[in-house]
Amino acid sequence: MHFTTEQRLDDGVLERAFTLGEIPGILWTPTPTPTPASAPVPLVLLGHPPLGLRAMYPRLVGRARQAVADGFAAATIELPGSGDRPRWAAVEQARADLRRAVEAGEPVDEETVDALVLPLVEKSVPEWQAALDALLSLPEIGGPVGYSGGVISIGIRLAVVEPRISAAVLFAGSLVPAAMFEEARQVTVPLHVLLQWDDAGNDRQAALDLFDAFGSKEKTLHATMGGHTGVPQFAGDAAARFFARHLK
Amino acid sequence: MHFTTEQRLDDGVLERAFTLGEIPGILWTPTPTPTPASAPVPLVLLGHPPLGLRAMYPRLVGRARQAVADGFAAATIELPGSGDRPRWAAVEQARADLRRAVEAGEPVDEETVDALVLPLVEKSVPEWQAALDALLSLPEIGGPVGYSGGVISIGIRLAVVEPRISAAVLFAGSLVPAAMFEEARQVTVPLHVLLQWDDAGNDRQAALDLFDAFGSKEKTLHATMGGHTGVPQFAGDAAARFFARHLK
Repeated sequence: MHFTTEQRLDDGVLERAFTLGEIPGILWTPTPTPTPASAPVPLVLLGHPPLGLRAMYPRLVGRARQAVADGFAAATIELPGSGDRPRWAAVEQARADLRRAVEAGEPVDEETVDALVLPLVEKSVPEWQAALDALLSLPEIGGPVGYSGGVISIGIRLAVVEPRISAAVLFAGSLVPAAMFEEARQVTVPLHVLLQWDDAGNDRQAALDLFDAFGSKEKTLHATMGGHTGVPQFAGDAAARFFARHLK
Repeated sequence: MHFTTEQRLDDGVLERAFTLGEIPGILWTPTPTPTPASAPVPLVLLGHPPLGLRAMYPRLVGRARQAVADGFAAATIELPGSGDRPRWAAVEQARADLRRAVEAGEPVDEETVDALVLPLVEKSVPEWQAALDALLSLPEIGGPVGYSGGVISIGIRLAVVEPRISAAVLFAGSLVPAAMFEEARQVTVPLHVLLQWDDAGNDRQAALDLFDAFGSKEKTLHATMGGHTGVPQFAGDAAARFFARHLK
């Protein structure tokens, strides 16, 4: 892990860009930087859709400021095939197929969903785990670790395979491969699932079925009105309180 | 409105029993009692199932303490046909039919649901409105007013016909007459709807359909695990924050 730039945001948040091998990422921590002697902070991993860190930055930095204000560090990494990382032909093809179906008002077939999501899960989850290794080796970061948002299938797989994830906030989206419903049954960490009830691009019933499938004993579905990016402030606050309950 | 007894609970909550004509009720207020010169407090009406105030008291007083701790007054009245109020043959018959169906593992037919719920809505809603007249005339109570819990159909009707209700926390239950789904479309106040996802006595799909039907621009569905009376503490806290956002 190699820090490349560093800036202090106006609310005292330290933002550091890093690379982990070829993968760019960003880490946000409180200032003054916690030390092992003071109190290392828990970590929230910020998931995001595969649109590139630069495009997602405004929303990510907002979530990171909230996390740091709540007493956490926050970090994210670029997804494979996005942003400045090399193009990924297979996923680009699936994305084009998806766009065509959506624009034609046709249902997205299972093959396209699988081709879009499954390789992303396979490739990105070990990268998030490698990022976790590096981040948890920093003296200012302790545990536990939460995962928040982004591609829900990545969150599911991470929650299943990575024991260092203690709690997750997931955004219920459709485009979930059938295989991920089975994996959802293996999730046992506390979950806070956000659903935008009137999200036009979302299959509400699939989201409810996925919520039902999760094996976690503590799971909460928090459905609010508004479109895909219209999560109201109070729903974000509720997700923050969920992490405060489980990561402290 | 006539106060009959008064006691101070250990956390400084003043609990007063009252009668409103023939209807018993309970009012909980902070101490020292707010005055018009200090700051009259908003009011939360505590709904409950028709099992009698005495049987419901332990849960009601818990909700009332929370409301007072949050800066509200809380009040409730006995439902018609319950507790010390005169028996009500029609509703008792419907209740017996319901019990028979549930014990036989049969679906509860629409006629039984209508016979159980609609008369209760017709008779109780004007009583809650009369209680509201009396309670809002007290110098220690200002506005706005929230309605919380109990028979969801009563909450729906109150939210539609009573403009002094500014926000409502509703417990999604089944046994909702078909006519109330239509009324739900006329509800416009902010709603926080609690759903116990695995409530065996509850038709989950009906609850989701009802949530979908509400006309309110701000409505949140908060689904948690556990049975009918197993609403976790954090879900109660979330409902309290909803009132704090809307009644202050």
